[in-house]
Amino acid sequence: MDRSRIIDLLSRVKSGEIEPEHAARLLKDLESDELGYATVDHHRALRLGFPEVIFGQGKTPEHIAGIFSSLQQRQSTVLITRTDPEKAAALLAVFPELEHNPLARTLLWTRDKIKIRGRGTVLVVAAGTSDLPVAEEAKVTARALGNEVDSIYDVGVAGIHRLLAHNRRLRDAAVIIAVAGMEGALPSVIGGLVDRPVIAVPTSVGYGAAFGGIAALLGMLNSCAPGVVVVNIDNGFGAAYAATLINRAESIAD
Amino acid sequence: MDRSRIIDLLSRVKSGEIEPEHAARLLKDLESDELGYATVDHHRALRLGFPEVIFGQGKTPEHIAGIFSSLQQRQSTVLITRTDPEKAAALLAVFPELEHNPLARTLLWTRDKIKIRGRGTVLVVAAGTSDLPVAEEAKVTARALGNEVDSIYDVGVAGIHRLLAHNRRLRDAAVIIAVAGMEGALPSVIGGLVDRPVIAVPTSVGYGAAFGGIAALLGMLNSCAPGVVVVNIDNGFGAAYAATLINRAESIAD
Amino acid sequence: MDRSRIIDLLSRVKSGEIEPEHAARLLKDLESDELGYATVDHHRALRLGFPEVIFGQGKTPEHIAGIFSSLQQRQSTVLITRTDPEKAAALLAVFPELEHNPLARTLLWTRDKIKIRGRGTVLVVAAGTSDLPVAEEAKVTARALGNEVDSIYDVGVAGIHRLLAHNRRLRDAAVIIAVAGMEGALPSVIGGLVDRPVIAVPTSVGYGAAFGGIAALLGMLNSCAPGVVVVNIDNGFGAAYAATLINRAESIAD
Amino acid sequence: MDRSRIIDLLSRVKSGEIEPEHAARLLKDLESDELGYATVDHHRALRLGFPEVIFGQGKTPEHIAGIFSSLQQRQSTVLITRTDPEKAAALLAVFPELEHNPLARTLLWTRDKIKIRGRGTVLVVAAGTSDLPVAEEAKVTARALGNEVDSIYDVGVAGIHRLLAHNRRLRDAAVIIAVAGMEGALPSVIGGLVDRPVIAVPTSVGYGAAFGGIAALLGMLNSCAPGVVVVNIDNGFGAAYAATLINRAESIAD
Amino acid sequence: MDRSRIIDLLSRVKSGEIEPEHAARLLKDLESDELGYATVDHHRALRLGFPEVIFGQGKTPEHIAGIFSSLQQRQSTVLITRTDPEKAAALLAVFPELEHNPLARTLLWTRDKIKIRGRGTVLVVAAGTSDLPVAEEAKVTARALGNEVDSIYDVGVAGIHRLLAHNRRLRDAAVIIAVAGMEGALPSVIGGLVDRPVIAVPTSVGYGAAFGGIAALLGMLNSCAPGVVVVNIDNGFGAAYAATLINRAESIAD
Amino acid sequence: MDRSRIIDLLSRVKSGEIEPEHAARLLKDLESDELGYATVDHHRALRLGFPEVIFGQGKTPEHIAGIFSSLQQRQSTVLITRTDPEKAAALLAVFPELEHNPLARTLLWTRDKIKIRGRGTVLVVAAGTSDLPVAEEAKVTARALGNEVDSIYDVGVAGIHRLLAHNRRLRDAAVIIAVAGMEGALPSVIGGLVDRPVIAVPTSVGYGAAFGGIAALLGMLNSCAPGVVVVNIDNGFGAAYAATLINRAESIAD
Amino acid sequence: MDRSRIIDLLSRVKSGEIEPEHAARLLKDLESDELGYATVDHHRALRLGFPEVIFGQGKTPEHIAGIFSSLQQRQSTVLITRTDPEKAAALLAVFPELEHNPLARTLLWTRDKIKIRGRGTVLVVAAGTSDLPVAEEAKVTARALGNEVDSIYDVGVAGIHRLLAHNRRLRDAAVIIAVAGMEGALPSVIGGLVDRPVIAVPTSVGYGAAFGGIAALLGMLNSCAPGVVVVNIDNGFGAAYAATLINRAESIAD
Amino acid sequence: MDRSRIIDLLSRVKSGEIEPEHAARLLKDLESDELGYATVDHHRALRLGFPEVIFGQGKTPEHIAGIFSSLQQRQSTVLITRTDPEKAAALLAVFPELEHNPLARTLLWTRDKIKIRGRGTVLVVAAGTSDLPVAEEAKVTARALGNEVDSIYDVGVAGIHRLLAHNRRLRDAAVIIAVAGMEGALPSVIGGLVDRPVIAVPTSVGYGAAFGGIAALLGMLNSCAPGVVVVNIDNGFGAAYAATLINRAESIAD
Repeated sequence: MDRSRIIDLLSRVKSGEIEPEHAARLLKDLESDELGYATVDHHRALRLGFPEVIFGQGKTPEHIAGIFSSLQQRQSTVLITRTDPEKAAALLAVFPELEHNPLARTLLWTRDKIKIRGRGTVLVVAAGTSDLPVAEEAKVTARALGNEVDSIYDVGVAGIHRLLAHNRRLRDAAVIIAVAGMEGALPSVIGGLVDRPVIAVPTSVGYGAAFGGIAALLGMLNSCAPGVVVVNIDNGFGAAYAATLINRAESIAD
Repeated sequence: MDRSRIIDLLSRVKSGEIEPEHAARLLKDLESDELGYATVDHHRALRLGFPEVIFGQGKTPEHIAGIFSSLQQRQSTVLITRTDPEKAAALLAVFPELEHNPLARTLLWTRDKIKIRGRGTVLVVAAGTSDLPVAEEAKVTARALGNEVDSIYDVGVAGIHRLLAHNRRLRDAAVIIAVAGMEGALPSVIGGLVDRPVIAVPTSVGYGAAFGGIAALLGMLNSCAPGVVVVNIDNGFGAAYAATLINRAESIAD
Repeated sequence: MDRSRIIDLLSRVKSGEIEPEHAARLLKDLESDELGYATVDHHRALRLGFPEVIFGQGKTPEHIAGIFSSLQQRQSTVLITRTDPEKAAALLAVFPELEHNPLARTLLWTRDKIKIRGRGTVLVVAAGTSDLPVAEEAKVTARALGNEVDSIYDVGVAGIHRLLAHNRRLRDAAVIIAVAGMEGALPSVIGGLVDRPVIAVPTSVGYGAAFGGIAALLGMLNSCAPGVVVVNIDNGFGAAYAATLINRAESIAD
Repeated sequence: MDRSRIIDLLSRVKSGEIEPEHAARLLKDLESDELGYATVDHHRALRLGFPEVIFGQGKTPEHIAGIFSSLQQRQSTVLITRTDPEKAAALLAVFPELEHNPLARTLLWTRDKIKIRGRGTVLVVAAGTSDLPVAEEAKVTARALGNEVDSIYDVGVAGIHRLLAHNRRLRDAAVIIAVAGMEGALPSVIGGLVDRPVIAVPTSVGYGAAFGGIAALLGMLNSCAPGVVVVNIDNGFGAAYAATLINRAESIAD
Repeated sequence: MDRSRIIDLLSRVKSGEIEPEHAARLLKDLESDELGYATVDHHRALRLGFPEVIFGQGKTPEHIAGIFSSLQQRQSTVLITRTDPEKAAALLAVFPELEHNPLARTLLWTRDKIKIRGRGTVLVVAAGTSDLPVAEEAKVTARALGNEVDSIYDVGVAGIHRLLAHNRRLRDAAVIIAVAGMEGALPSVIGGLVDRPVIAVPTSVGYGAAFGGIAALLGMLNSCAPGVVVVNIDNGFGAAYAATLINRAESIAD
Repeated sequence: MDRSRIIDLLSRVKSGEIEPEHAARLLKDLESDELGYATVDHHRALRLGFPEVIFGQGKTPEHIAGIFSSLQQRQSTVLITRTDPEKAAALLAVFPELEHNPLARTLLWTRDKIKIRGRGTVLVVAAGTSDLPVAEEAKVTARALGNEVDSIYDVGVAGIHRLLAHNRRLRDAAVIIAVAGMEGALPSVIGGLVDRPVIAVPTSVGYGAAFGGIAALLGMLNSCAPGVVVVNIDNGFGAAYAATLINRAESIAD
Repeated sequence: MDRSRIIDLLSRVKSGEIEPEHAARLLKDLESDELGYATVDHHRALRLGFPEVIFGQGKTPEHIAGIFSSLQQRQSTVLITRTDPEKAAALLAVFPELEHNPLARTLLWTRDKIKIRGRGTVLVVAAGTSDLPVAEEAKVTARALGNEVDSIYDVGVAGIHRLLAHNRRLRDAAVIIAVAGMEGALPSVIGGLVDRPVIAVPTSVGYGAAFGGIAALLGMLNSCAPGVVVVNIDNGFGAAYAATLINRAESIAD
Repeated sequence: MDRSRIIDLLSRVKSGEIEPEHAARLLKDLESDELGYATVDHHRALRLGFPEVIFGQGKTPEHIAGIFSSLQQRQSTVLITRTDPEKAAALLAVFPELEHNPLARTLLWTRDKIKIRGRGTVLVVAAGTSDLPVAEEAKVTARALGNEVDSIYDVGVAGIHRLLAHNRRLRDAAVIIAVAGMEGALPSVIGGLVDRPVIAVPTSVGYGAAFGGIAALLGMLNSCAPGVVVVNIDNGFGAAYAATLINRAESIAD
């Protein structure tokens, strides 16, 4: 349950609309939902200020549907990531209200328009066309979590002038997510150009000694530009989640 | 040259204290300093808003001394990291004004008291006693770059109550740097407890299948807590640098 | 042949029901059964006190059927592990008496109700929903080998309160099998909470730098909680087998 | 503080020897001891039923001495592992009451004679002479934690008759710790011979493609004998700790 | 062209059956056959005393057929290895005279009965049923290259009595090929039992930390039994080729 | 005890020189010698036909001296390998009769002149000057085990004419040991030139991506010349031991 | 846009055929073409003197078609690499003017006959038949970039005479591209034979410890022949591109 | 013996200054020099057009001195690489005519002034100060082999403006050697800027996940700039040798 829905509930208690005993039962349901195959952590939204997100990979469409239904009762926004075309089709057949982004492999449901809560723009920069699935996953996630987002694509370091041409946009971002496969040098160059937090996402793009993203991962961990931080290979979602934590104007605890 | 020193220079031009021609020559010197063995990047301080830091590992005491002298002319703060006892002794003999932290392996010089510029506290949490050198490097760096810093040490996940006892301090931090060797699980637990950016630093602490920090690094990259970001093994400096970028109240570009 | 069946045979010799010469021939058959493609080790049940288990992966349905028939003659319980849906269907067509657990990928046959021989409960704890196939393999195996079993699922360390809520059940178990992919931190936390043997099973769940379970494996081997022991990636069967050895009230040798 | 010392304290409260207020203060001190560089977890002894052990590697003699003094106040037994000759000499100079085992690299202090609490014997088997430091660490630890211990050394699988000659002792053990470097095949053979829990310890003995114990570690993880469990390379201490958990007659929680 | 066929040719020159000029042209064709996509090395049979063998993996059926036709003109025996079912079917449709061993994935053609040229028996020992494809490849190859062959299957080290039962056959072999996956300990035990050359073949059998045969490969390279030599993972062909070189009564150069 | 010494003993029994009771006691001592830190396997000489060899690495001079004394009582030849200069000096001080080869890092003692028992020559070929320690270890071992030995050094594949110049000697060898570091291509070229068993020994010579011998090891395992077999990195001893098994005219069992 | 087309444009300006304003607009279009999913770098042809090449792997046929259309407007030659049969068929259906080389997996379009601009011949040498796809990719690329090309195939080091027979052609080449899988020794031998730049291309040909080309890659990086340079596994395109840079008679900058 | 010295010798034969018989003997000595521990390949200079270079690592000062003396008789230039300070001192004591470059770890002797034979300049670019030893080794080697050399140091990609400032010098080079550790991104950026052959040299500079140069090596092999070729980690010598082959105006074979 979102923080806003809890405040709403408590307001209705205050106003006498709901009896305290009834409210207590509702609140008790909040913490988690035992589905047998999953322990849906509704408390998370309260504790961390974000809705629970469903990682679709390795889950059956039935499991995803069950967890989605549970979350839909209590959250204003539900995001499902890593859904291949078959899973997406199966879920869309049941929940036509889901918004599908095939490139990002995401399904998104929002009760209302997403409220922007971040201080600035999360800018997603990708080195090559093949990095787009990961970059788009980051974009969709960042937007679902309440950020303004922008993107610059296909500006790898072998044509450095293409990146330099966007210097102003790089400087204007609040947080930059730099997505790259192969040698993964893009975050180092960006990190040397601007004074913004740079979250590097290695992708599994490449072949041979790219080793499924290891080359890019190592390149980013060894970046000569200080301040570059790294997430797992192809983890566009995680990068956007971290960017959101960085970009928030005020903490949930306040 | 720090941004503040440039503003000071320009103010003196405005006031007539310095002639424009003379100021132009001074500004021209700013960009870089060719020492033969190094191209000291004074422009960096302007571009990124931070002083250049000297990475002491793999440099001779003579080289470090030369670069330090060059930076001391233009910056208010100079930090030297990764100095083993012999290098530290050699440099202290020449520059007794340096403040030595043997555990962190750092040498620090500041013209004036460091001005706090961050929005909140950078909290350094370490899993074990053996992680202290890396944790202390992060602390010294974060302070030198203008942050309030705090720390909690020896709270590994095998005694989870020790960490939970500090829940309030974790929630009050602006950014958390989580330092751990061995299985590197500390950032996952912290990332699940609070809604703060968590920068994970794997350390080379451990033996056998720890593989000099690889186990911790992989553990952190695969954290089941979304939003955890990672830096290189033992890279306390980099974590603090990233934390500073995140913690800054306003950007240098504004 | 099970120990119980041998005792039964010898009793019938004692009572005069079977002639010694005939019994000798029956006993001679016990040791092994040459199927050409396999040397079925019937002696194992005597030597180790457990029935032989058929590892289905990499064997044709025909081979499995042959070995199963051989074991069915001499054991009260036959377990087949690692059977994909096609193999399971082929075997069920021939042996409809087999009990199929598709999630665990097991087929089980028991002559009589399985006799509980362990001292306490084997508790299987899994970090995430995607770890269930391995966790269920451990459960099915532990039960087939004569243990009381219990399970707690989806209690990963990124929501530590979910695990702490089960503190009492953790302390009441005789042996704990902790199943986790990604960073594999669950066994460390459990090992720090209770004074029970913890068998850690890394799973291949994850992506990118999870490297098919290597990250979890390394995390578990480097656990900061002493006493955690580890088995191969995805080896739910082996964990349950070890748990059974630990849980037995008395040894077969007595 | 050991469980026995707490019971003693409470008995004295009951008898009126100690005032409740005073006892409360004493109990409050139990949980942990903040030494600045370490948070000594006295609560562990209560929670897990074992004394805290000091891992000497990566700690200065001063730190070890400080932690030792703290533990000596509250525990009947203090074990220090991984002490190289220099550290051992420095600590013996201060604490001559420590018992030094140079081969095992341990220092041990016991207030009284160690009470045997295990159900049977912990048997340490080592493949070669070069594995003795790890095997001895396991022996010293198992004894310090209250087990009967026994050992068989230099019985590698290339001379299988040497191992088979000890078949009876293998069967009589309650738990077996199998220590081996190089190809690490010893636990597989033992696990196939007896129905006892086998804890495999790979050692870094070997050269070339032994890769500091990786070959032995992989061999043990892939053991064809079910039920073999594995600990980190050279981790004799962890193996003995796990063996103790398995061997205990009754749990601390009872 | 086989050595025997050359001697035959030269005999016919001596007897006047063939004119020297004609024989010279025939000999000239021997060295190699340019097929465009391959340079068939007919000279190899002369130089090394063995027929050229076709490695089927990574070649199209058309290429294999072309090379086979070329070799069939000049050799008494042609062996094709690593042919999957589709390739085998395609080739059998064209060359029904080929003898197919589906388990070994080989196709064999011989003009006459293969002549035994070795001094003793090549014994192939396999640890498990899943290792049979590699073991059978070794058997078929050794026989095609002129050796007496024998085999013992499913005698892994976890049931050491199964291997010890064959002690006599092990001692009577001239060369032993030991095939094993998982931890690959079989060659070490055999190498310690007998004074015969042992060629170890790691297989890709296993899962998880078996890493496609790396665990077995490392185990064999680090064998504590001196004199064990190793070939590539799954390389039954190479092991048999080496065994043949060892087993030959006299060298081709004599 | 060597086979020859046993035959001698039995002859003296036959002749009445020794009483059967006394002989029985002497034979009983043969099997093994318990030194506490080692179980000296005297039975090995009987079983395998070779004297036990002492692997000096990882053993103290005291341990080596003890094992040497035990073996000297029963064997005609004792070889100690992997002795660094300090250990060698310590042992030579006590046993001046040892023959030291500093390059090979061996110490050798022989009661009488070594009897040649092999069928032909063991030829050691090394690619570069830096490979000599490993090549010499192979030479010393092969000679100690009763082979004629010869060597060709510094004939790496980058100057292929140097190797081709020795074609005759390569063809005349009974077994070839090919020692190479870096890319390890020497055995492939030799294996393509002659029809002799080739035992490849990768060395740790090289730097960077040589990875301590891994590059050479992989190169040799993937040799395109069939019949090349491989031993561990730097394992000159093991190569010579295998060469001896191959080269023996008749087996010890006959 | 090719350099030649720019010179043509400027000539037409000079002659009055095109107005300067119009020419400026045309030139402005040159730099890049924003397709949304790609930033086509037309400036590259100017900057580097080569046409942009489309790397087909990981791009949809639609994306490739779009980029191809964009490049076809401005370049005289367009090469598409890494197109599997399905992609190739889809593209050929739309652009029948493309020349398909299925073995090389390339599609090539040229406006006019390709002009030879290199100083000498680029010679592609391949070790085995299975290496042909990579070798052919190198050949097609080198020709498309304006070089004379030649090739020698199936001359691996296990039959060294096959390579030595081509000594003259090796010496006559301007640049040699040496393609090999398995142990990758071919470039070392060639590099020792001739004084030509040798570009080594490891291929993923092999199995087991070939590790998808790692063995060949390491072998080439550790070549004992100085001057051998290496590109990524299976990167025939990159090798040909480098060979072209080396082979050019004069630089574009002149 | 250099080509020039052979021509000189033959001229003296032509002029009658030397008798043919004597010249024949002199020529016979040319091919190689057997020093026992080394086969000095004098023929190499003829075959490849370059003097033999002594790789000092892993050779004793005595061996280096012996090989140097042999080469000094026949070559005009002798270069010794990888000499640590002790070896250098020992050699300088004997051969004071050697020119020592301690940073490059080289010793150089030239009979006369080195003749420039290359077509253009070999430009060595290094990313950081710590890369200088490798960069200097490349410079010294390139000069010794007859090239004009130039260098740009400390221009890593995190301060991209420092590199861009040298655009003109990059374009004017004939061959560029790009030396970098850490993420190794420098060659990608250079390769995208200019149309020159770029030889990338990864260095072992870095820590943690730099893995001794692996991160840089992988980055360079996966460069998104086509045409970048790579040599072994820290192999400045090899890069310079390759650059020399590329830069030569005419081949030795002409």
